[in-house]
Amino acid sequence: MPADTRAMRIEILNTGTELLLGNTVNTHAAWFGRELFKLGLRIERQTTVPDGEAIREAMAESVARADVLIVTGGLGPTSDDLTREITSEVLGIDLITDEAALRSLEDFFALRGRAMAEANLKQALVPVGADVLPNANGTAPGVYVPPRLNGRSHCAVFLLPGPPRELYPMVHDEVIPRLRALSGVETVHEALELKFTGIGESDFHQGIDAKLAAIPGLEYGYCAHIGEVDLRLIGSPEALQQGRAIALEPFQNFLISEDGSSLQATVVRILTEKGMTLATAESCTGGLISHRITNVPGSSAVFTHGFITYANEAKTGLLGVSAADIAEHGAVSETVARQMAEGALRVSGGDIAVSVTGIAGPGGGSEEKPVGTAWVGLARKGAATTAFKIFHPRNRQDFKLAVSQAALEAVRRSLVGL
Amino acid sequence: MPADTRAMRIEILNTGTELLLGNTVNTHAAWFGRELFKLGLRIERQTTVPDGEAIREAMAESVARADVLIVTGGLGPTSDDLTREITSEVLGIDLITDEAALRSLEDFFALRGRAMAEANLKQALVPVGADVLPNANGTAPGVYVPPRLNGRSHCAVFLLPGPPRELYPMVHDEVIPRLRALSGVETVHEALELKFTGIGESDFHQGIDAKLAAIPGLEYGYCAHIGEVDLRLIGSPEALQQGRAIALEPFQNFLISEDGSSLQATVVRILTEKGMTLATAESCTGGLISHRITNVPGSSAVFTHGFITYANEAKTGLLGVSAADIAEHGAVSETVARQMAEGALRVSGGDIAVSVTGIAGPGGGSEEKPVGTAWVGLARKGAATTAFKIFHPRNRQDFKLAVSQAALEAVRRSLVGL
Repeated sequence: MPADTRAMRIEILNTGTELLLGNTVNTHAAWFGRELFKLGLRIERQTTVPDGEAIREAMAESVARADVLIVTGGLGPTSDDLTREITSEVLGIDLITDEAALRSLEDFFALRGRAMAEANLKQALVPVGADVLPNANGTAPGVYVPPRLNGRSHCAVFLLPGPPRELYPMVHDEVIPRLRALSGVETVHEALELKFTGIGESDFHQGIDAKLAAIPGLEYGYCAHIGEVDLRLIGSPEALQQGRAIALEPFQNFLISEDGSSLQATVVRILTEKGMTLATAESCTGGLISHRITNVPGSSAVFTHGFITYANEAKTGLLGVSAADIAEHGAVSETVARQMAEGALRVSGGDIAVSVTGIAGPGGGSEEKPVGTAWVGLARKGAATTAFKIFHPRNRQDFKLAVSQAALEAVRRSLVGL
Repeated sequence: MPADTRAMRIEILNTGTELLLGNTVNTHAAWFGRELFKLGLRIERQTTVPDGEAIREAMAESVARADVLIVTGGLGPTSDDLTREITSEVLGIDLITDEAALRSLEDFFALRGRAMAEANLKQALVPVGADVLPNANGTAPGVYVPPRLNGRSHCAVFLLPGPPRELYPMVHDEVIPRLRALSGVETVHEALELKFTGIGESDFHQGIDAKLAAIPGLEYGYCAHIGEVDLRLIGSPEALQQGRAIALEPFQNFLISEDGSSLQATVVRILTEKGMTLATAESCTGGLISHRITNVPGSSAVFTHGFITYANEAKTGLLGVSAADIAEHGAVSETVARQMAEGALRVSGGDIAVSVTGIAGPGGGSEEKPVGTAWVGLARKGAATTAFKIFHPRNRQDFKLAVSQAALEAVRRSLVGL
């Protein structure tokens, strides 16, 4: 990354006792990482502290080190919500009541026909000279303390609410434009995220690492998930184009999306474009494939029938799988996978159907078919049915995820003619 | 919490560039929080830094502040894996090659028929006098530097591998026994986690907060998820018993589990005990209910058939729902929910069936049936079918989760006779 933006040191301070007791997983940090990455910026340190006084020490350390500090949480009306007060003390800037923030608070309660409690008054307090960041989704306005204020220079500080539905819109509307201005990043960088499946991180290392490293001004990184590798590129538009071409030359056929879309969203998009409908027949994934598909808004136009045939009687009764074949070859077999997909296609009357049958474990494995074995079947109207075997010896949930990924990828490849 | 354990300040330092780029959500912090909570311990600060040199500054700060520092990541063989070396420098303790660790590394590669690279040699380096923590699932052994070593006192430091399948067993086998010994917590505290559904956090605040607060030596906290509130208690066995009784007196009927088991695990357990089988008929949840059930090992004995009837033709064709009723009342209606449940029960031949039909959004809502509306139906062999309406105007995924929770809870209540 060019020196001009790397020089802007950004830290995140998350406050919340629930994050340290483990009641809540801190997803803010990763979310900020992704949002800032799009700007060509990165987080140099993230800290979590409990609610209350513990914020003071951590904030004092961060403002001494960082150029920009982003704080989440502690803006509520209770006695544990001290972020506002401690920021004022750490930066040495008095708090005053902001009239616009106060009116906005009063409006929030009036709109809901509720009386505003005395305790909420402190939510309208802001450091003198700071910007109030409107909050359309809650009572706590955000605060931005710019880096030069009252003739002094210090770390720029954002105070933001904790709940995602309040935080995310505020970051997009109020924080990102200010970060762009602070970093001057607007005209310098762009970012690109290419998602791949069916190949591993080592394929990238062996295939294109050296070529990417040779592009001047390009920063890149891989992120491997189960059944997926994301390649992220940052740099000038020219560097991005070069990096993209180098990645697609060997791996075009494994590309899920260039805009961060998930595999299921990509499948739903292609089905929608082609006016086709999909059915699923799941054994070992137990509904995860259809769950992923139906997470995509608009999936109801292309996904009609899902069969979860966990018992053999469900495979025979709902999908017409041959009981004799199950007895001879086992429920986890090529022929059962094929018959499940064909049954789902026939019963649904759709255009394409995918099936999975496998051994999730911990029980049920054998020497011939160990835990982690699965067959995927694919049936299409007017085409020959296909099937393939995969092996993912993992824990139950990771196995389900890996198999669902292989099944969705089989649908994608069939739809795009691979 | 009693002063003796609160006085032991524990910090977590997670290293990993991927955590700050947002490629990976940091679940270690919450996981440690839950594990330590069970010991009556808590994390006072959690910090994330990138791989490499950034660890130095953060570690130096933590060992100056904390009694125990737990570090994850950076124990691999690459040039960015510096945790071992930096710990040695920060604590001022030389590194030596541990012969047992070296043999264990050699065995790891020999077992897999691979040659050990030169770079792996540094994974056998440990600070003089430190304990080597065996790693059965990877190449990187852990390290424990006790608080009194070579005549000096300092912060106790654990160095642990990052991947969960290496980290979790090492924490249970090697870290927790040492933390117990350090804190002397073993005989002092116990913890209890009661999971409830069907009531909200405010019900607890209004109902039992004051009574819990009055129990000497009891610490308690709530954690609200979608459709679930967890009550955690720590204290002496007597205090726990009192707290438990106070919570169960008004809320016994809403109790999912006393051992942290999920709602789906509870449903599978009761079905197994009763020798009963379940079928599901899902529209708006799109497979999430069956996905949750099949996440439970052993669920194949009690879950046989799942129907995802996203299209109206699937509701009529697979479950025998009346097309005329769909036309007259709509797919999201009491009668359709009832017919879906009855159809699933009939086709599966099982003992109990649950159905959901609703409007997940963002499209499809109306004034009469806004986005967030769902009907849940429940059919049992030899009993009258029931149905109820719920309303959870949330984003698509949270809606699916809330509806799946209501459906699973309906099954649980029916099974236990509520």
